[in-house]
Amino acid sequence: MRGMPPAQPNETTPHRVLPVETARRLLRREAYPNLVRLLRKLHSSECAEMLMHLTVSEQSKVLERLPDVELATAIFTYLPEDARTQLLPHLSTERLVAIVRLLPPDDATDILGAVSPERLTAMLEQLPEPLAAEINQLLSYDPQTAGGLMTTSYFALEETCTVGEALERLRRAGKAKTETVFYLYTVDAEHRLVGVVSLRQLVMADPEAALRNLMETDVVSVGVDEDQEHIAQLVTRYDFLALPVVDHGDRLVGIVTVDDVIDVISEEVTEDIQKIGGMEALEAPYFQTGFLQMVKKRAGWLTALFLGEMLTATAMGYFEGEIARAVVLALFIPLIISSGGNSGSQAATLVIRAMAIGEVRLRDWWRVVRRELGAGLVLGAILGAIALVRILAWQAVSSTRPYGEHYLLVAFTLACSLVGVVLFGTTVGSMLPFLLRRLGLDPASASAPFVATLVDVTGLVIYFTVASIFLRGSLL
Amino acid sequence: MRGMPPAQPNETTPHRVLPVETARRLLRREAYPNLVRLLRKLHSSECAEMLMHLTVSEQSKVLERLPDVELATAIFTYLPEDARTQLLPHLSTERLVAIVRLLPPDDATDILGAVSPERLTAMLEQLPEPLAAEINQLLSYDPQTAGGLMTTSYFALEETCTVGEALERLRRAGKAKTETVFYLYTVDAEHRLVGVVSLRQLVMADPEAALRNLMETDVVSVGVDEDQEHIAQLVTRYDFLALPVVDHGDRLVGIVTVDDVIDVISEEVTEDIQKIGGMEALEAPYFQTGFLQMVKKRAGWLTALFLGEMLTATAMGYFEGEIARAVVLALFIPLIISSGGNSGSQAATLVIRAMAIGEVRLRDWWRVVRRELGAGLVLGAILGAIALVRILAWQAVSSTRPYGEHYLLVAFTLACSLVGVVLFGTTVGSMLPFLLRRLGLDPASASAPFVATLVDVTGLVIYFTVASIFLRGSLL
Repeated sequence: MRGMPPAQPNETTPHRVLPVETARRLLRREAYPNLVRLLRKLHSSECAEMLMHLTVSEQSKVLERLPDVELATAIFTYLPEDARTQLLPHLSTERLVAIVRLLPPDDATDILGAVSPERLTAMLEQLPEPLAAEINQLLSYDPQTAGGLMTTSYFALEETCTVGEALERLRRAGKAKTETVFYLYTVDAEHRLVGVVSLRQLVMADPEAALRNLMETDVVSVGVDEDQEHIAQLVTRYDFLALPVVDHGDRLVGIVTVDDVIDVISEEVTEDIQKIGGMEALEAPYFQTGFLQMVKKRAGWLTALFLGEMLTATAMGYFEGEIARAVVLALFIPLIISSGGNSGSQAATLVIRAMAIGEVRLRDWWRVVRRELGAGLVLGAILGAIALVRILAWQAVSSTRPYGEHYLLVAFTLACSLVGVVLFGTTVGSMLPFLLRRLGLDPASASAPFVATLVDVTGLVIYFTVASIFLRGSLL
Repeated sequence: MRGMPPAQPNETTPHRVLPVETARRLLRREAYPNLVRLLRKLHSSECAEMLMHLTVSEQSKVLERLPDVELATAIFTYLPEDARTQLLPHLSTERLVAIVRLLPPDDATDILGAVSPERLTAMLEQLPEPLAAEINQLLSYDPQTAGGLMTTSYFALEETCTVGEALERLRRAGKAKTETVFYLYTVDAEHRLVGVVSLRQLVMADPEAALRNLMETDVVSVGVDEDQEHIAQLVTRYDFLALPVVDHGDRLVGIVTVDDVIDVISEEVTEDIQKIGGMEALEAPYFQTGFLQMVKKRAGWLTALFLGEMLTATAMGYFEGEIARAVVLALFIPLIISSGGNSGSQAATLVIRAMAIGEVRLRDWWRVVRRELGAGLVLGAILGAIALVRILAWQAVSSTRPYGEHYLLVAFTLACSLVGVVLFGTTVGSMLPFLLRRLGLDPASASAPFVATLVDVTGLVIYFTVASIFLRGSLL
């Protein structure tokens, strides 16, 4: 979480060339005032991007030594989460405390949640009591919930206040931590959320009016324990810019802003895509994930798939006699099983994504089956026809007659098997996500490799069964 | 595009049970006033969700006959895009015109862009001239660009205005189309964008001050032709709530709001995921895509992959002699090629997603190769070890001695081939997205099936080459 959206954009050319080498030179010469001047010309997010081109020791030098703590803080908040975590041990406790004091409590909490326990204690002692208490509270929430995602920089007043008082309070708050205010939340004497007033309404209203006569009382709010995935769905569906968060006593404790929700959506999608690729989701960006950690995340699924795939060797064992008699059958094994896997992968991916965005629900399984049976039949027929043409053409032009005297039977065996295998692959691929969701698992785990593994054994059985029917008495 | 975010949330329980059957009964009895009362108790997005449980003819009856046009319009805007398009032919031109008049120009344009040319002409004639002209202008933009995404309901004033005038204008605008105002854009006499003031700043400033003394002049804006994917990246990176759009003369023509950007992000992700699944991206949701259209989107890639996979039959042809002599080799073909495919799919998916969110760039290819070579070696060794153990164990416990007298050589052949195939799969899988991007293509096209097809032929060659080394003089 990177706090709230900036009050206004302040950069003209988001794709300018960054003066990385100039910054590096100034840093080497320890010309910090010049460096500050250089950095002030850029948007903080650009400074952060530039920092990513420097080594960790250069990065920590910038953040530690920059005379302008506010600038250092702004840059720090725009660094990717993992880069921030990596830098923490390189910064002095004094500098970290200075940075933390300038941050909204939720961002401050992210930092304190990532330092060692001893340092946490030391830092909390150096922070003013109310902030330290607030951070302690925020540290107690699960980062994947509303509590972990929310900022405590919101603007709330009692419902008995007048519009004039509200505007006055807003003016007095000045450039304080509540940087962007779009909604004013109204609370009762126990700080329970009772309503919401938009800043626009506030501006338009009679200064003497009480907030309670102006406010909208049906407010969508979420509990501190609400899962971030559900929050993302709410914001996407209702187009909220901010969602108030209440504790178990319905007291307002914070707000989740749309920019943090966009980050959550991105995280959830990354998880889904990695699962679709046939692995466990990584918890950090690619380069920040340790080598062993990454191998572990991949080896689990790869091993499981491998053990499943071993059944193909067992299945093939049953057809060893057929292969020995008609080696030509072995030639098409990769083609057969990959066609089943590919068509299954298409169907599974379509259904996974349609489920993720709510287009397809559990109860739609029967509509999906009927559709996919049709699609599988047509797709299988297309591949079968291609295989038929290819074998006949090859046999006609090649002097070696590679498919022997029974090439016509071989061609029909292949074509019919392809129809069966593609039909089966499509059906399994489309139904696996439903089955996983029904079992309470993540449909995204129905990865292309998983579907392929399920389909391979059956594909072989279909192929050799069709072969034994077509080729009995000739090749077999 | 669904216009701007609502000024305030107005619903307490987003997950209530929807009174579908009650609505249906009222509709059958044509008790429209009661239906209006029922619908007014729900958030418009819930009404829209409820409508999705009704048939198309029931849906059109609700929207056509509801006496409250504003309510009908609100519900209509919350329907999914494809449901809206499907309903258009069922609504009278009169009702559509009434709905369009209540919508912000960008949403109105979406509707007019989806009706038949004759109807478009008829509707434009019934609309007031300035709105008709504006819609005509908006219709000329590509829907995938800033022009197609933007709303023209923004709040802009000349920089010479004072704060007091601005607040007065804002009050006068009242409940008009500019529903949510967070930023006030300042323009010069030629309507060129020169600055931005947040509503918060406006409230806090001296009423006599000129906007030009208050405004931030470095404004990030995008051109009308800017691609929506780039806009999504900008908003994600800078945490903007709205982004001004300018024409070729730098004149302000609209704004893109964060809620529309969230929809774009979701669309782009769906496209990526469908490509990763080995198919062309669909343009509409699963159930709304026609059967033939869907088969076409899938058949293209499936056929291309099939043609590529045919090379495995050719490759296998070269090893027909080996298979004839040692049928046991054929047993492990599916296991070998699927292991290459699965490890390649993992690597490709990791890199595709890391590229999409900017974690990995083109110039990082060498760091990725080194990492993936290591990962491939370890993963291959793990699978190889499992294969070794499995063959030795099977041979020991099975009375039929399924792998013959040379089982030890077969086991080592399999293990070594697995190391080679997984190493190769991982490398190809991780490099293919780089190659595609380098060629100006979408890295997401490096689907699991595509990688598997590339890896299969080489996997077979590796396997039979290793076999010919290990088994020469014994089985071969």
